[in-house]
Amino acid sequence: MKVSDIGEQGLLKKLQRFCPSEIIGDDGAILNIDRDRNLVVTTDVLVNNVHFSEITTSPEDAGWRSVAANLSDLAAMGASPLGITVGLALPTDTQVEWVERLYQGMTECLQKYNTPIVGGDLVRSPIITISITAFGQVHPNRCIHRHTAKIDDAIVVTGIHGASRAGLELLLHPELKQIGQNLDEADKQALILAHQRPKPRLDVLPILWDISPHSKFTVSGMDSSDGLADAVLQICRASNVGAILELHKLEWQKIPVSEALKKWLTPAQILEYTLYGGEDFELVLCLPSELAETLVEKIGNNAAIIGKITSHPQVILRDQINKNPDQVLTLSRGFQHFNNS
Amino acid sequence: MKVSDIGEQGLLKKLQRFCPSEIIGDDGAILNIDRDRNLVVTTDVLVNNVHFSEITTSPEDAGWRSVAANLSDLAAMGASPLGITVGLALPTDTQVEWVERLYQGMTECLQKYNTPIVGGDLVRSPIITISITAFGQVHPNRCIHRHTAKIDDAIVVTGIHGASRAGLELLLHPELKQIGQNLDEADKQALILAHQRPKPRLDVLPILWDISPHSKFTVSGMDSSDGLADAVLQICRASNVGAILELHKLEWQKIPVSEALKKWLTPAQILEYTLYGGEDFELVLCLPSELAETLVEKIGNNAAIIGKITSHPQVILRDQINKNPDQVLTLSRGFQHFNNS
Repeated sequence: MKVSDIGEQGLLKKLQRFCPSEIIGDDGAILNIDRDRNLVVTTDVLVNNVHFSEITTSPEDAGWRSVAANLSDLAAMGASPLGITVGLALPTDTQVEWVERLYQGMTECLQKYNTPIVGGDLVRSPIITISITAFGQVHPNRCIHRHTAKIDDAIVVTGIHGASRAGLELLLHPELKQIGQNLDEADKQALILAHQRPKPRLDVLPILWDISPHSKFTVSGMDSSDGLADAVLQICRASNVGAILELHKLEWQKIPVSEALKKWLTPAQILEYTLYGGEDFELVLCLPSELAETLVEKIGNNAAIIGKITSHPQVILRDQINKNPDQVLTLSRGFQHFNNS
Repeated sequence: MKVSDIGEQGLLKKLQRFCPSEIIGDDGAILNIDRDRNLVVTTDVLVNNVHFSEITTSPEDAGWRSVAANLSDLAAMGASPLGITVGLALPTDTQVEWVERLYQGMTECLQKYNTPIVGGDLVRSPIITISITAFGQVHPNRCIHRHTAKIDDAIVVTGIHGASRAGLELLLHPELKQIGQNLDEADKQALILAHQRPKPRLDVLPILWDISPHSKFTVSGMDSSDGLADAVLQICRASNVGAILELHKLEWQKIPVSEALKKWLTPAQILEYTLYGGEDFELVLCLPSELAETLVEKIGNNAAIIGKITSHPQVILRDQINKNPDQVLTLSRGFQHFNNS
């Protein structure tokens, strides 16, 4: 049996028996090191021509993105970053300048969050592989998990989805710039920047601590690195609940969409990018609706309540205004490593 | 300029400007997280056919060795392990059984030290790459550094060097089993086991804490993953001191040598393996001589005082009994990644 026969999820399932069961299932691992502190650790491996490519990604951007993905995992757990380590496997003919530019991009992102590179490893390999481990700390009462969403919780997104995917499309197919004729240069650059320089939403944490009483912190969630639909589905599966997402309920209570995408794509394409695009690195958070309204207001910038948690174990997309039939979302649309399809 | 033009040390030097200077230079990075606790983090990347090979290493052994190397880095800093993360990059046609056997070997080693796998990442890649990050904790007063060795400190090794290199030789060249005709099967298996299942010397830490008063812990050192000579040279360079190593001074005050190697190799070959073999994952520790004698006695099992730290900035190998001329050891014999030589 090969890895491709069972896919990433199948292999993960087989390997879970080697890990303590209580620490599986979130964006990072949590280790309680004392009464007031949990250590959160997360790790990502990026392989040249699988996770980044010279066509769409400069070394600086590859560095920024790899760091941003890890810091986003920390944000998704509620943790403040302490540092990262970088393991770098390189062919011997790699240009030194490429490596320095990669580190330049990493540190540009890290500096925004006062996070140091604290160690690493350099080894020889036939293919460039970047392995980053980030670690942070969080008060045990402020940990954010996937498995604690409650019925009637409001579902909040911290910003727009689909922009990163659209930016990638512009980078992959420069000829589309002719097609998207209603996009001005600023729109295009904003979409491309969303792909090249995603911002981990660590800024949301102090707002959460501020609005949620320390003694009864009731926020669940994860980041949307694999897409908005994936995040909602993963949270619902882990929490054994369902959700209704609203396409057009109220101005501030629906899935927010990029204005640039509205100028460029059909409604069906926009929905596709928004739900399944991935790599926007926003947070998807579930919390009581009165807190959710305060949260959305304080975050601003396209943060929105997109729906609510239900007891029915499905994730349903509802369009109350256009009276389209409800759609049931499924994980099979999400990104899976190893599968050849 | 390519990576091969400047080698691992050259590239490391260029990348140091991206890291805080105070945390460079030890086996792991140290982060002070509160008054009573430092977090120690270390990371290693292993690439198929560079760091392990199916000829000499079963998947279980690759797993064991990769974990042992990281736990040894923690031991070298004086830190007790908290957990590891595993980033695994795999070709899609990798056998699932191979991955399970790798994890089996990792957990066999980890279980000896009550250390969990707390997270990881699985990605697709053309080449198997194992990236492990280990983290541990140590009281700030008990941290072991390379740069703090003092003149007149005794230099202790926690066990024999050269056995791992000899075991590798037996695995690479099974025909040598005919040549090493004085080696019985138990000798051969012991040498092979030294290569396949090295033991990180975490057992030495409680002994150190026991013999060294908490308030004035004066131990410097590192592990000998890149060889005994490399460890002494690195410590001396970092501490701006020199050392005299004794080949034959007293029974308990000389570099210990494997009895099996004495049956098999010439004295020159034994010295070569012992000084430069590498991957024995013992500790090389510098501390006041009266404490060193107690330490060696308590560790037993071939632990020995091998020499002392001097003010003269060279590492000299002395043979008082055979009256051979002093040898000056240099780093250039040590293992360097990326260099084509």
